[in-house]
Amino acid sequence: MYEVDLNCDMGESFGAYRLGHDELILELVTSVNIACGFHAGDPSTMRKTVNMALNKQVSIGAHPGLPDLAGFGRRNMSISPQEAFDMTVYQVGALDGFVRSEGGIMQHVKPHGALYNMAARNGELARAIAEAVYKVNPELVLYGLSDSELIHAGALIGLRTASEVFADRTYCRDGSLTPRSEPDALISDPTQAAAQIVRMVTEGIVRSRENEEIKITAETICIHGDGEHALHFAGSIREMLLSKGVRLRAVRNDSSIQ
Amino acid sequence: MYEVDLNCDMGESFGAYRLGHDELILELVTSVNIACGFHAGDPSTMRKTVNMALNKQVSIGAHPGLPDLAGFGRRNMSISPQEAFDMTVYQVGALDGFVRSEGGIMQHVKPHGALYNMAARNGELARAIAEAVYKVNPELVLYGLSDSELIHAGALIGLRTASEVFADRTYCRDGSLTPRSEPDALISDPTQAAAQIVRMVTEGIVRSRENEEIKITAETICIHGDGEHALHFAGSIREMLLSKGVRLRAVRNDSSIQ
Amino acid sequence: MYEVDLNCDMGESFGAYRLGHDELILELVTSVNIACGFHAGDPSTMRKTVNMALNKQVSIGAHPGLPDLAGFGRRNMSISPQEAFDMTVYQVGALDGFVRSEGGIMQHVKPHGALYNMAARNGELARAIAEAVYKVNPELVLYGLSDSELIHAGALIGLRTASEVFADRTYCRDGSLTPRSEPDALISDPTQAAAQIVRMVTEGIVRSRENEEIKITAETICIHGDGEHALHFAGSIREMLLSKGVRLRAVRNDSSIQ
Amino acid sequence: MYEVDLNCDMGESFGAYRLGHDELILELVTSVNIACGFHAGDPSTMRKTVNMALNKQVSIGAHPGLPDLAGFGRRNMSISPQEAFDMTVYQVGALDGFVRSEGGIMQHVKPHGALYNMAARNGELARAIAEAVYKVNPELVLYGLSDSELIHAGALIGLRTASEVFADRTYCRDGSLTPRSEPDALISDPTQAAAQIVRMVTEGIVRSRENEEIKITAETICIHGDGEHALHFAGSIREMLLSKGVRLRAVRNDSSIQ
Repeated sequence: MYEVDLNCDMGESFGAYRLGHDELILELVTSVNIACGFHAGDPSTMRKTVNMALNKQVSIGAHPGLPDLAGFGRRNMSISPQEAFDMTVYQVGALDGFVRSEGGIMQHVKPHGALYNMAARNGELARAIAEAVYKVNPELVLYGLSDSELIHAGALIGLRTASEVFADRTYCRDGSLTPRSEPDALISDPTQAAAQIVRMVTEGIVRSRENEEIKITAETICIHGDGEHALHFAGSIREMLLSKGVRLRAVRNDSSIQ
Repeated sequence: MYEVDLNCDMGESFGAYRLGHDELILELVTSVNIACGFHAGDPSTMRKTVNMALNKQVSIGAHPGLPDLAGFGRRNMSISPQEAFDMTVYQVGALDGFVRSEGGIMQHVKPHGALYNMAARNGELARAIAEAVYKVNPELVLYGLSDSELIHAGALIGLRTASEVFADRTYCRDGSLTPRSEPDALISDPTQAAAQIVRMVTEGIVRSRENEEIKITAETICIHGDGEHALHFAGSIREMLLSKGVRLRAVRNDSSIQ
Repeated sequence: MYEVDLNCDMGESFGAYRLGHDELILELVTSVNIACGFHAGDPSTMRKTVNMALNKQVSIGAHPGLPDLAGFGRRNMSISPQEAFDMTVYQVGALDGFVRSEGGIMQHVKPHGALYNMAARNGELARAIAEAVYKVNPELVLYGLSDSELIHAGALIGLRTASEVFADRTYCRDGSLTPRSEPDALISDPTQAAAQIVRMVTEGIVRSRENEEIKITAETICIHGDGEHALHFAGSIREMLLSKGVRLRAVRNDSSIQ
Repeated sequence: MYEVDLNCDMGESFGAYRLGHDELILELVTSVNIACGFHAGDPSTMRKTVNMALNKQVSIGAHPGLPDLAGFGRRNMSISPQEAFDMTVYQVGALDGFVRSEGGIMQHVKPHGALYNMAARNGELARAIAEAVYKVNPELVLYGLSDSELIHAGALIGLRTASEVFADRTYCRDGSLTPRSEPDALISDPTQAAAQIVRMVTEGIVRSRENEEIKITAETICIHGDGEHALHFAGSIREMLLSKGVRLRAVRNDSSIQ
């Protein structure tokens, strides 16, 4: 029996600013990554989002980002490993305050945006983030790009990791994502995307842009929730997986969707 | 045997900005209130300060403030009780991330500046803050102005509380602090301040500005750490208390200074 | 010939966060108040909004607010008059950078939210804000609540002022707005609102909630732009005024809509 | 008669945080670069600093930085040229609000920290910043690293530029600064530093770390003001220049020190 986790970012509103379709997404996924106030999110949004996720029995993760609200955490910043460690501990701790006060348990940590991308390639940043997660709570699962420095650092320090794959991105021969600057970086055809995901999950294989079959570990799938198109896209991936008999299940969760 | 806790704010640096004499203060007090990034402090400062306090075996508390770095959390803001709840959970959680990652246990929570003052008088804000602390961890001690709404709200919800008194402030007949706008608000004579503190701790009595003896609960003394004068002042209060046989001890700490 | 200005807040987006229907509003009003980055807005949004307003030949004003992005500048803060002065100069200057770089001229300044409300009642804050505007550029027009401390302070220092009235709010006998906490604070019937506005503009009179006719100066009308309802409401007020032969014209602008 | 400008960063305090020795520095230099609130500075500090500089008849420049208070604007961020344009316009405008309200005229703009370094090497960022300065006010002088992309972009768009040199840094054969990561990046000997500066100013030549003489344009000298050592260092450079008959003069200022 194959199984996989579907994760999505949420809790990205800030003050008077509303972003995302959190209630609809919660019906589709098994895990959510909740913004922690640096690139998005604020204390009230965090509390409400944690509460909604617990009510829906969707597993909760912290989604720490760079301190760049204006840039939504998507602009690379030349931070030191120590700074990465510190901002991870801070944000994971802050979200955990809400998870505990709402009576839940945090499942995982997934860095956001530029922090995620930098930690995928930069071993020092990856180790700092993995160490931060481990030191706050060694039971947490570390989410990262499949075969990335972050996943390797997490495994090395003793964390359970979840290798993330993308339905709507093409892959290079070395397992990395095709850079967004390339014309063939995105897969816009839902059928092709769903087929790629099913194969990654059930066979552990993806066809690279160079048209070679490469091995890939697919433990969790990144679902985008911004816009109606994205929600429809997510729904079709979900249906395709269920139709192939794949069980949708959070990494640490006994309840699953079959 | 009388005993009392000496607490001081610290960890108030931010980025390139240095504030306070944290290393010197750690030699004098039994508990510290560490800024959590809203009115002061940043993730790196929080980690270093937590680490220093643990090394010195000084008890650690979170010092949540209003989201007003430019005003150092000293400007009143008309926040709702729900907002007070949320910003308390966030900041307590964030600091707890560092306390846990450094291998310690958080002892207490003491609101900062304008949040402290508003929670002393406003029952709704006081209840919201007490509930936030309780829901994050019911073992935490809530520090607040002696006989304030915050102390009452903490006791009501089931938290252990620590009633705070000031050496360098005069008191009104009703037990409140003389407003700083009044000419006799501050006690600048160290001998007079030390005498007031000793009497509050050993007799539970303070002489009000109206020259009446009133009852007061003194479980923790607020020590100021800004400037050489303050450090000297703190040192003389400490010596006076020790000379009177008062044991200096954190609220939750088996080790004490006699 | 009667004439009046229609003003609306805009440029309230921030980073990835979109707010308002700025393009639609620009078709309806004669002046816009552009957020300056403290309570809303960011440099890129400011540039785009200034550019759009200049293209539509709508007059531009700065809309300085309290430094409270999370609260959208709607939470009172106990700032000093000097702080009000400084944050006004800063924000007016910042917006003026964009107005100048896009080849325009700033017409006015209207404080936002809590700063607007505090400056309406607090003479010291009002004088500080008026002085800030005057010192940056004495040709600027100061917008404020009709008959407020801010309008009086502006006139006293030598600024041209524009007295603002509301279509959808009821007035007390003393000319102040009925507090929002009262059940009859808002006028939800568009016909009643339009009638109130027409009478304020053409007769200088409004019927108070105590059912007395009081004098009121109506030089500019506050238009809300959030939501389809608000846009429809604004459109109907605009049509009613035009049908009564009122000319819609910015305070400093030769072009007008008849 | 040789002449050169001495410039120094200032106005870097923020809220309760004090930084720098602005009053002492104002006695030494001919131009100051005032922080604008993004990497340092706040509205009140900006007003006070502008006022002090005007009183001392020292020329004023804006010192725009990256939006990174926690990192003091020293961490590279991958901003777009459009974002660089927008944040420059915003900050130059904000400071100009204070310069105008205090009755002065802004002389120049010098980007800060990581923005300065990125604009020295990246032509697109350099052009965006130069265009921002030009569009706000074409009379402003653009300060940048001698022979950098920023200086070239400024000249190309029609701005007057001021080529900056450093007393305490060594230069590479191509005219760039030796990276700080290299052991010989800094010149710690005041005599050697002063000699290098005098030669750059009077001969237009500097000896590179490869021991070759290269041409360099020296119109303004960067003076550091942090710490007593820096002040002493600055004083000795100043005295050496005066003793060699070099006139110290702001780029746009009729008053000079001989």
